[in-house]
Amino acid sequence: MALVPLIEYDEAPPDVRAVYDDIRATRKVDWINNFWKALANDPATLTRVWSQVKQVMAPGALDPLTKEMIYVAVSVTNNCEYCIHSHTAAAHTKGMTPQMFHELLAVVALANETNRLSNGYRVDVDSRFRSPFAG
Amino acid sequence: MALVPLIEYDEAPPDVRAVYDDIRATRKVDWINNFWKALANDPATLTRVWSQVKQVMAPGALDPLTKEMIYVAVSVTNNCEYCIHSHTAAAHTKGMTPQMFHELLAVVALANETNRLSNGYRVDVDSRFRSPFAG
Amino acid sequence: MALVPLIEYDEAPPDVRAVYDDIRATRKVDWINNFWKALANDPATLTRVWSQVKQVMAPGALDPLTKEMIYVAVSVTNNCEYCIHSHTAAAHTKGMTPQMFHELLAVVALANETNRLSNGYRVDVDSRFRSPFAG
Amino acid sequence: MALVPLIEYDEAPPDVRAVYDDIRATRKVDWINNFWKALANDPATLTRVWSQVKQVMAPGALDPLTKEMIYVAVSVTNNCEYCIHSHTAAAHTKGMTPQMFHELLAVVALANETNRLSNGYRVDVDSRFRSPFAG
Amino acid sequence: MALVPLIEYDEAPPDVRAVYDDIRATRKVDWINNFWKALANDPATLTRVWSQVKQVMAPGALDPLTKEMIYVAVSVTNNCEYCIHSHTAAAHTKGMTPQMFHELLAVVALANETNRLSNGYRVDVDSRFRSPFAG
Amino acid sequence: MALVPLIEYDEAPPDVRAVYDDIRATRKVDWINNFWKALANDPATLTRVWSQVKQVMAPGALDPLTKEMIYVAVSVTNNCEYCIHSHTAAAHTKGMTPQMFHELLAVVALANETNRLSNGYRVDVDSRFRSPFAG
Repeated sequence: MALVPLIEYDEAPPDVRAVYDDIRATRKVDWINNFWKALANDPATLTRVWSQVKQVMAPGALDPLTKEMIYVAVSVTNNCEYCIHSHTAAAHTKGMTPQMFHELLAVVALANETNRLSNGYRVDVDSRFRSPFAG
Repeated sequence: MALVPLIEYDEAPPDVRAVYDDIRATRKVDWINNFWKALANDPATLTRVWSQVKQVMAPGALDPLTKEMIYVAVSVTNNCEYCIHSHTAAAHTKGMTPQMFHELLAVVALANETNRLSNGYRVDVDSRFRSPFAG
Repeated sequence: MALVPLIEYDEAPPDVRAVYDDIRATRKVDWINNFWKALANDPATLTRVWSQVKQVMAPGALDPLTKEMIYVAVSVTNNCEYCIHSHTAAAHTKGMTPQMFHELLAVVALANETNRLSNGYRVDVDSRFRSPFAG
Repeated sequence: MALVPLIEYDEAPPDVRAVYDDIRATRKVDWINNFWKALANDPATLTRVWSQVKQVMAPGALDPLTKEMIYVAVSVTNNCEYCIHSHTAAAHTKGMTPQMFHELLAVVALANETNRLSNGYRVDVDSRFRSPFAG
Repeated sequence: MALVPLIEYDEAPPDVRAVYDDIRATRKVDWINNFWKALANDPATLTRVWSQVKQVMAPGALDPLTKEMIYVAVSVTNNCEYCIHSHTAAAHTKGMTPQMFHELLAVVALANETNRLSNGYRVDVDSRFRSPFAG
Repeated sequence: MALVPLIEYDEAPPDVRAVYDDIRATRKVDWINNFWKALANDPATLTRVWSQVKQVMAPGALDPLTKEMIYVAVSVTNNCEYCIHSHTAAAHTKGMTPQMFHELLAVVALANETNRLSNGYRVDVDSRFRSPFAG
């Protein structure tokens, strides 16, 4: 159970309503999910986090579906229950099929495995790998 | 410095050489990176992990570049230095541009942020999010 | 559901009762929370952990409220449900207001975000930052 | 070694220079640390992250020193080397004494310990702890 | 609630049934736990993961009980609820007594504590510790 | 480089020397490793942590080698470089062979993998697994 009340639209102050309206318009949905209703207890955080999500998750060099799958990968690694549910649903809406979801989880699991083999053996970074973008 | 010696091809037993040959053929490269040279101290692990990487990272419902970026996302979340270097280099080889890398990191960072907001407020999962693939 | 029975005062052996009495006296409360009732299955652990908590969380160079908020910060980062609930409640008792809680979570979330940007870009530590306490 | 070049002021485009100027003015320092020089490879991220840091770390219901110590607590839990160095230095500048640093680390370590005892025994949340801020 | 349906034996395709049969024969049990029923939605993952578990958890230089306790140690550190329950039950079946379980959790908790003291103080690795197996 | 000076025996106050003497006597070694030299900056922490390590790592229902391997498992999962080196060396001293080390890392890696498959599919805990020690 949430540590704070979930703020519904009808009881929200104007600055919160403005964010809710923008979430619905941007996402073309008619409801607000609980994450935002919890953040609305602190309008400054709500406004700041929504602004960031809106900017970062917009189409860019990566498409929105790829971004959602990366979000799921992080959330699964951290075991954030809410985030796994919300971003899996979002990725599904954007076109992630069951087979894509299975492969996503397979890669996440494999990476978590080999991360620990690298950690445990203390493998030195190959000089060939350093800094592909270092200019 | 690695906790085990790095096994070079010339000093490797036949089962290790067979894996090294398959890595080079599959990846179309002429060298073996340190991760495998460390694992080669335990040929059973080397064989098992390579077999798994080969299967999981092959093209499927997700393309190889998307899979590499998911690998980077997990490695950055876990802060595995070796893995960040090796999989960023691999993603670069497969076509990840600097701008794609920046956006990848931006999503990873954002997800780590909102994971903690969800954790901290103990936000309840919306019933609408449950089980898009539950059949 | 806990993996071990929760040991109530009336059924506890003398060494466990002594710790329970000390917890109630130190905290000026009339009940024992489930964490200690679970640890009581292993009196050595109960005694050792309580002794440590009592020493570390006592007023010192940091005041008890600051210490509780640091405890919440760690528990949110690790997503320990029990610990988030118990230490948020403790911080609330010691004077944490809703606004302080919101700002605490905002800092925790931000730190988790920028930790991954530092990880991902493999930023070198500035020489000016090294060892402010190195003597 | 950083995966991207560190962008110095003299070679930076105007939007990056504007952020650098604001960092120096806000913090009353005459230099820019490597974190921002790495982020400057993606001006959108630089601008967004700095704006967030500036807002979240400003004085509010929590004072800036407490916020820095919370930042250190998260960074130590996640083992982000860069972040531990930079935020310990920042907390030192804001008044953290060696004894405060020792107590901070002692609480962080203790919390990481008891988080796992709670996890491992699967301790149920006491009903008395639920939702001090739930309204 | 699982994100995918749990596949029962009677509705499973032949390749899934073959894995289920092997799990039951190898473990000498007459039922299949939910983990495998979830993985069965992707037969390739089911087959690959079971093959790996079967090989890694078999008796070797370490006995099966020690391996299960290591599994519990990782799962508690990561706070994987399902894994804590399933591997604690498995370790119990293989002979882990309550006192062994208490000591296991005490070590896991202590290690999580001292990991953060090492992280936080940025302790340099003693040259005497390097590479006991480095050949 | 450590954030605090490493305190050598000759410059240590009497309470620190007493702990150093006890470490050497208990472990039958003639030197003190850097972890304790860093903690010695805060004698209260040094005394408390050593007391805890001495109690938890002593022979009990689990033998000292098993305890050291559990310590390594946690340290690899958390990627604590210092701790991986120090506890691998300690386990080696207590009899861990290279093959045992390889199998230890293989289990740690596998557990980190399947933890994420359980997380990602949100697998429900089987009722048969609940509470083997619940009394």
